Amino acid sequence: MICYVARWKPDAKGRIARAAMELYGRRGYERTTVAEIAQRAGVTERTFFRHFADKREVLFGGSRRLQDLMVGAVTSAPASAAPIDAVGAALQACAAVLNDRQFSRQRQAIVAASEELRERELIKMATLTTAIAEALRGRGVKEPTASLTAEAGIAVFRVAFASWVDPANRKEVGEVMRDSLEQLKVAISA
Amino acid sequence: MICYVARWKPDAKGRIARAAMELYGRRGYERTTVAEIAQRAGVTERTFFRHFADKREVLFGGSRRLQDLMVGAVTSAPASAAPIDAVGAALQACAAVLNDRQFSRQRQAIVAASEELRERELIKMATLTTAIAEALRGRGVKEPTASLTAEAGIAVFRVAFASWVDPANRKEVGEVMRDSLEQLKVAISA
Repeated sequence: MICYVARWKPDAKGRIARAAMELYGRRGYERTTVAEIAQRAGVTERTFFRHFADKREVLFGGSRRLQDLMVGAVTSAPASAAPIDAVGAALQACAAVLNDRQFSRQRQAIVAASEELRERELIKMATLTTAIAEALRGRGVKEPTASLTAEAGIAVFRVAFASWVDPANRKEVGEVMRDSLEQLKVAISA
Repeated sequence: MICYVARWKPDAKGRIARAAMELYGRRGYERTTVAEIAQRAGVTERTFFRHFADKREVLFGGSRRLQDLMVGAVTSAPASAAPIDAVGAALQACAAVLNDRQFSRQRQAIVAASEELRERELIKMATLTTAIAEALRGRGVKEPTASLTAEAGIAVFRVAFASWVDPANRKEVGEVMRDSLEQLKVAISA
């Protein structure tokens, strides 16, 4: 037990996140307070706020990194790559963030259960779409192709993500993204 | 003048909507009250609430009809139609609601200027996507094709709508929808 505490104690941020996810899942996001999360994680509220701006950030703190990774992949795709291939590269870049299926599944269920969080997720995806369209325009892609390709990429992301967190799915996230993009191509050109 | 009043007076709902749009555009949605809308339209607040549940409904009252039209078009597309063609029919069905470019342009600007309204618009589009995916499944379309095709259709809707309300655009909404769908097909299969 001492060994366990000694191992986890320094990772206050990780312990807070685990405590929050556990409480959100069990009692609901709205009904969980920062004080309860801090208590469960064995830290003060002050420590909570050193790591997270609010209780929502435990769930959305990774959004910025996801966006940076996807935009970076679009920007650094070979100059010869078609817009849809640059977006395909962005979908592969997600794997660096979506590396914990259990956490993602838990997060998905928590977000689905809260109207406030569902709205926040929609805003996050809309922001991501806009950022990817802008990155495509930065590659010289004209409108409306830039916006249409970005929207299609986020459509694939959404559907692939939901499929990946399904307990029956055993594939890696990158493979699921690739499969979904292929399925979209088939569906659109039918 | 009497003639004008006589012509418009019975259309309380139309007058309320016009008064609201004018005030939202000029002073901002958040800063406009129902009392002010009613006063400008020459009706009581009671009459306002007989026609609209709240001031947001002036802008979103058409959403349900739009959804019913699009879902109806998917459902009633020929059995032989591919999923993407059923969605194409849904995009053509929009024209029955999007028949006033000036109103749509004004509405677009009002929504863009308000965080609350932008969020509501995102929710509306997410609900529409879910409804279309369900209608496709009702036609026997399997997942993930149903969700991917619905998402792609809404992507086209979004981009085409933004293009249609642009003052430089002179095409009919149905033509813009058709063009955008074609452009998506080209972008995706590149």
